[in-house]
Amino acid sequence: MTEIEGAQTPAPGSRRPGGRTARTRAAVRDAVLTGLAEHGYPALTVEYVAEHSGVHKTTLYRRWGGLEGLVADALDLAGEDAWAPPDTGSLDGDLRALAREVADSFADPATAAAPTAFVAAAFQSERAADALRAFYAERFGRCEVVVDRAVSRGEAPAGTDAGAVVRSVSAPLFLRLFVTREPVDRALADQAARAALTAVTAGAFVTDSLAADSSGGGSPAAG
Amino acid sequence: MTEIEGAQTPAPGSRRPGGRTARTRAAVRDAVLTGLAEHGYPALTVEYVAEHSGVHKTTLYRRWGGLEGLVADALDLAGEDAWAPPDTGSLDGDLRALAREVADSFADPATAAAPTAFVAAAFQSERAADALRAFYAERFGRCEVVVDRAVSRGEAPAGTDAGAVVRSVSAPLFLRLFVTREPVDRALADQAARAALTAVTAGAFVTDSLAADSSGGGSPAAG
Repeated sequence: MTEIEGAQTPAPGSRRPGGRTARTRAAVRDAVLTGLAEHGYPALTVEYVAEHSGVHKTTLYRRWGGLEGLVADALDLAGEDAWAPPDTGSLDGDLRALAREVADSFADPATAAAPTAFVAAAFQSERAADALRAFYAERFGRCEVVVDRAVSRGEAPAGTDAGAVVRSVSAPLFLRLFVTREPVDRALADQAARAALTAVTAGAFVTDSLAADSSGGGSPAAG
Repeated sequence: MTEIEGAQTPAPGSRRPGGRTARTRAAVRDAVLTGLAEHGYPALTVEYVAEHSGVHKTTLYRRWGGLEGLVADALDLAGEDAWAPPDTGSLDGDLRALAREVADSFADPATAAAPTAFVAAAFQSERAADALRAFYAERFGRCEVVVDRAVSRGEAPAGTDAGAVVRSVSAPLFLRLFVTREPVDRALADQAARAALTAVTAGAFVTDSLAADSSGGGSPAAG
């Protein structure tokens, strides 16, 4: 635990805005992730994070404000990874790989625990909800290149709403994981990817075409 | 408050398994829903439910076991309503109406609060999670008739996975409501319905065709 203590005296140039060193911040983040996986939110305590990060409780309160700030910062830091979406050479392959990555990561309790705890924390804490919103906006933003490449390859029509497409691939999985509490597997991932691919190819996600069709059979006021 | 007390002395034939009268149970359910909307889970207390239902705290503990049991029973009872899916005469209209109903109900804080609290409670309580799973299984089961009717009208291919279709219509909305924490509106509902309709029409939800295609470009072992 003491190996991290030294990080509280930062080397010149290593301070981030707010005065946290990257090393301390990572140690605290790791303790938060472990704690969320073990105890969930809000059972996780600042004491737990102090004990597992080697950073003193008073420091945690001073720099992060408390449990909400710790969870929000762990999410911010989780969003700074080098993850990149798959690049299989086809939209079919990319959407399938994206969907399977979600299914696989939640099939493993070790990798599922922290993301699940973050989603749960967002119901209890406005700060966690803000951090989760930012995390997923950035993460799905990274995924959009999959659709952009498909458009440039001629696999998807120009004007396709890339953000909606990448969300639609994950949505049936997240619905079952967090709302209907039903099992999720690769067959479901493949079905979600296939449905999205089919809809994309047929132009169902082209924003202009949606606007033109959105009045349906009723009056324009119906929307 | 005392008007409900009389319900604790049930009329002959009105007792449910477990000794609850329907009237007491409904009063308790209403108090749980109000409390979840006001305070959320797990801030809701048995004391609150006692005060707002007029049923004594010791009775609540004896019959429902505590907060988890109260929440689970409120969900069970919510699933016993007479709700039926839309029947507009076309799959397009039905899927759009389904999606809009979800978007509209969560756009109104008054109708959104209790369902949101149930979803949140499922992260904290295994009993609530079981009740939520049963609620949505039954609710989506009722929706499947929309797809069955489309198949019989020739709008959807035989073998369409009705359960997957009705979930795929709601999934992009629930993803944004509870995971990515992004806004949900009728335009998004229409997009979700249109994507699902397009995928259904093209056979993307036909179970047999999915199985035949699931190996993609890789080896059969990839799945």
